[in-house]
Amino acid sequence: MNILVIGAAGDIGQAACAALKANHTLIRAGRSGGDVHVDMSDSASVDAMYARITDTFGTLGAVVCTAGDAHFAPLSDQTSDTMMLGLHQKVMGQINLVLGGLGHLADGGSFTLTSGILDRDPIVQGVGAATANGALAGFVKSAAIEMPRGLRINVVSPGMLDVSAARYGAWFAGHTPVASDRVGRAFVKSVEGAQTGQVITVD
Amino acid sequence: MNILVIGAAGDIGQAACAALKANHTLIRAGRSGGDVHVDMSDSASVDAMYARITDTFGTLGAVVCTAGDAHFAPLSDQTSDTMMLGLHQKVMGQINLVLGGLGHLADGGSFTLTSGILDRDPIVQGVGAATANGALAGFVKSAAIEMPRGLRINVVSPGMLDVSAARYGAWFAGHTPVASDRVGRAFVKSVEGAQTGQVITVD
Repeated sequence: MNILVIGAAGDIGQAACAALKANHTLIRAGRSGGDVHVDMSDSASVDAMYARITDTFGTLGAVVCTAGDAHFAPLSDQTSDTMMLGLHQKVMGQINLVLGGLGHLADGGSFTLTSGILDRDPIVQGVGAATANGALAGFVKSAAIEMPRGLRINVVSPGMLDVSAARYGAWFAGHTPVASDRVGRAFVKSVEGAQTGQVITVD
Repeated sequence: MNILVIGAAGDIGQAACAALKANHTLIRAGRSGGDVHVDMSDSASVDAMYARITDTFGTLGAVVCTAGDAHFAPLSDQTSDTMMLGLHQKVMGQINLVLGGLGHLADGGSFTLTSGILDRDPIVQGVGAATANGALAGFVKSAAIEMPRGLRINVVSPGMLDVSAARYGAWFAGHTPVASDRVGRAFVKSVEGAQTGQVITVD
C-alpha cells in the first residue's frame, strides 16, 4: 500500500521506513526534505499536502508520523511558551495529520503517531515531552472509537533508540537504549495489524 | 493550612471544598467569582494572583485546581482551534498554576490538578477532553521528579459526578456516576497524603 511517512529523516523515521519499505510504497514528507513538504503545525499546510498526495500518488493506505518537537529544560525554567511548543508541534501537529487525513485514507487504513517513553519513565528536563506524550495517548484512545470506515489509530512510544544514544544518552541517565529494528517493527505492527486505540510501547 | 482552590464553584470544586474545609482555610479563585480573580490561561494573571494572595493571606500550603475547559464535538467536527482550546485552557491553564506557584508554596506543599475519566474510558465527542487528561497525567508524572523543597504534585481523575449526571449523563452512556464525597476525599488524599506524581482515579 501507499504509506505517507512524515518525519522520515529522523532516527525514528528511518527505523520505521527501514521496516516498512520492503512491502509498501513510501511517500516521505518533511518540513524541508522528502517527496512533499509540510508544516504539520499548520492545518492549511496539512490539507494542501493531502490534496497534492492524492493527485500525485493515488490512495493512501496508511499515515505514519514520526515527527514532533518538544522543549527540553528544567521544570523551573519552563514557561507557558516553552510548554506550548510541545503541545503545538508534537501534539497538535500530529492531530492535524489525523483530522486532515480522515477523508483521504482508504477504507480500513490506519494512522500511526509517535510519542515516547518520558510520560511513563520521566527524566530531568523532560516535562515538555512527557506532557505531549500523555496527550497523544489520550488522543488515540479516544479518537479510535470515532474513526469512520474501519480506520484505525495507534501511537508508538519508544524508549531512546540505540542510534540516538550518542547524542541524547547523557540526558537519559540509566535508560537502556532500544534497538532500532524493534522500533521499526512496532510501526509494522500498527500498520499491518488490526489493533486500534493502543499505545504500542518499545522499552 | 491555607489552600488555594481554583474553580471552586464547579461540581468538582464544590466536592473538593466540602471535603477540605473542615481542616483548612480555603481561598477561592475563579474567572469572575471567589476571593481572587484569575484567568489561569494567562501566566501574567496567574503571577498577579499569587502575589496578591501572598500579600493578603500569607503562605500557601496547597494549590488545588478543579477548573479547565475542553471542547466536546464529534471527531470529524474537531479542528485545530477546537482541539487547542483544551490544550490551552485545561492543560496549559493548570500548568501555569504550577509554574507560577513553585515559588509561593510552603516547603512540603502540594499541587493537585484535575483531569477526568475520558482518557481511560472514552466517550463519543470526548476526544478534546481525553487529550487534555492524558497530557495532565504525563505532566504530573514528570514534574514530580523535579519539584523543589519537597513539593508534591498529583492529578485527580474522577468519573462523571453524581451531581453532574442530570446535565451530562446523556453523553456518558453507561457510565456509573461517582459519589461527590468520594471525589472530595481524593483531593484530601492528595493534599494531606505523601504521594506524588500520581493519577488519583475515582471511578
